[in-house]
Amino acid sequence: MDKRGEYVQAQKALVWAARDPFRILSPFHFSCRVNGDDDVTMKVLYCGVCHSDLHSLKNEWGFTKYHILPRHEIVGLVTAVGSSVHKFKVGDRVGVGVIVGSCQTYDICEQSLENYCPKMKFTYNSTDHDGTNTYGDYSNMIVVHQHFVLQFPENLPSDAGAPLLCAGITVYSPMKYYGMTEPGKHLGVVGLGGLGHIAVKIGKAFGLKVTVISTSPKKENEAIKKLCADTFVLSSDPTKLKAAVNTMDYIIDTIVVVYLLAPLLSLLKLDGKLVAVELPEKPLELPISPLVLGRKFVGGSCIGGMKETQEMLDFRAKNNISADIELISVDNINMAMERLAKSDVKY
Amino acid sequence: MDKRGEYVQAQKALVWAARDPFRILSPFHFSCRVNGDDDVTMKVLYCGVCHSDLHSLKNEWGFTKYHILPRHEIVGLVTAVGSSVHKFKVGDRVGVGVIVGSCQTYDICEQSLENYCPKMKFTYNSTDHDGTNTYGDYSNMIVVHQHFVLQFPENLPSDAGAPLLCAGITVYSPMKYYGMTEPGKHLGVVGLGGLGHIAVKIGKAFGLKVTVISTSPKKENEAIKKLCADTFVLSSDPTKLKAAVNTMDYIIDTIVVVYLLAPLLSLLKLDGKLVAVELPEKPLELPISPLVLGRKFVGGSCIGGMKETQEMLDFRAKNNISADIELISVDNINMAMERLAKSDVKY
Repeated sequence: MDKRGEYVQAQKALVWAARDPFRILSPFHFSCRVNGDDDVTMKVLYCGVCHSDLHSLKNEWGFTKYHILPRHEIVGLVTAVGSSVHKFKVGDRVGVGVIVGSCQTYDICEQSLENYCPKMKFTYNSTDHDGTNTYGDYSNMIVVHQHFVLQFPENLPSDAGAPLLCAGITVYSPMKYYGMTEPGKHLGVVGLGGLGHIAVKIGKAFGLKVTVISTSPKKENEAIKKLCADTFVLSSDPTKLKAAVNTMDYIIDTIVVVYLLAPLLSLLKLDGKLVAVELPEKPLELPISPLVLGRKFVGGSCIGGMKETQEMLDFRAKNNISADIELISVDNINMAMERLAKSDVKY
Repeated sequence: MDKRGEYVQAQKALVWAARDPFRILSPFHFSCRVNGDDDVTMKVLYCGVCHSDLHSLKNEWGFTKYHILPRHEIVGLVTAVGSSVHKFKVGDRVGVGVIVGSCQTYDICEQSLENYCPKMKFTYNSTDHDGTNTYGDYSNMIVVHQHFVLQFPENLPSDAGAPLLCAGITVYSPMKYYGMTEPGKHLGVVGLGGLGHIAVKIGKAFGLKVTVISTSPKKENEAIKKLCADTFVLSSDPTKLKAAVNTMDYIIDTIVVVYLLAPLLSLLKLDGKLVAVELPEKPLELPISPLVLGRKFVGGSCIGGMKETQEMLDFRAKNNISADIELISVDNINMAMERLAKSDVKY
């Protein structure tokens, strides 16, 4: 019963979920929690497909709870709001990213760093505050506390805007936090997948010179022609790498496999900053002398808080930045996952 | 001939130098360059003995030029000044640190980051602008361009103040650059040698809570009783290390051997900063997840520029900070080097 004295029934929902690490997703009926006073219920319109879904499906990070419904970049239409919700109304187009809960009490949350709260609840594979599993966005509906619902700007398309809710904030947040936004400075983007291609767009929007660094020669054309990167460095070619030594101010590193830090650090100028936003499975080899002799650092960053995610969406809308996507129906989600595993997707 | 039309003769000087990597230092006569218009000649009063001297003597960094006279923390009395020198006069007490030359032309030097100038000349083991080798401070005299001479504050003792010229600025500079000076924050100092003990003193002067982190139980008493550190963590004891997890804001890492970064990173809170100021011979193993999930970074820093070194000396004088030293005569320098190699010295 909510504050208005009206009963709100448990809601039946349909998701595409995996039952085990063999990562086949199939339809699965579950009960959504009732829409509480602070909740927003929405009909899912579009959602992203991301490499961390594969990690979760295969339990590569070791904390997957099956059934799992991996996804976390949702754009939807509000179908119900609780009595304490004033920011949203039925029919609004809204977004939900990676986070659907946090302590909302201590320092970290007061600074809107919910993404680093030890009690942070993921949009999928977490236990929500009512004790049920969170099932993400390959479902037809979702109920989320209003604090974790984002206003989706009018001029952002629902389909191509959805990936900004994870990939977008994952690259925007470190650029803001680590001060990697000074116009005219030179940003290197390592890897041109989902995160990388958005990093290129946002780097250009900040007025940076952007260079894509990749081991794949076929990415050059995409980087320059399609994404308007300024230059391309084929990192598997020592000559090309050498020519770029000591030219960059910042590097955003979106690589998920184990890689060598030393060649990347050599590309940075004095006071250069390299920030990792992905989680390679094993530690990397870190030479200390480039850090000491060039006053460089290697940092990291994980998605972003709610306030900054809203700021990012507004920045994207203002600068007309969305993701480059390939639209699929949920019926084809298993094929999409297979293609993701084989790197047979662009972004 | 200088601008005043007076001849300045090549000056005979005596140093204690090593002829080969067996690191025995013995007296060696050489000619100092004449005192030019921009030069300051000084009589060496005191100099520090530092672990990097051992690296250089043994050619462990691979660029030693023999004869070598390794030293770089000099306090002296001015005996001559060139016609363009107005900041110093004969009889002044002055300091010379690690640097005696740089391009003094481009951006880096304009920002007084001479310590990162690609044309930086070390006080020893470099070729000076007149083509001669620089011979450091185990000599009885030295001629240095005025830009690289520091005013030595009145209330800093010559003997215990000398080590500040390398060790002091090496820990002060990163604390300023990386913003590790907010009163009340918690600083971990890894290693309690020459650099570490000064880091403790400066941390306390900035109003930080300071914890010494060491593998050596005998350092606890020194850290707490003598240096007034707030706490001590015996890093070889997993229980003690665990109790300190997630408690520190900053770590200054003064370890010269290969070590594990993961346990140190675990001591840092969200947004924690670990800065290395020494050069382990091999790369370290860097786990990326603490960086990403805790928005932490691992940075480095190398000594400091001239402007900042003067600022550090003035800060030390104001806060009455000098180094804790053991005073030896130059006749005993070989024994001191042996003791340094065996870690049989305190700071």
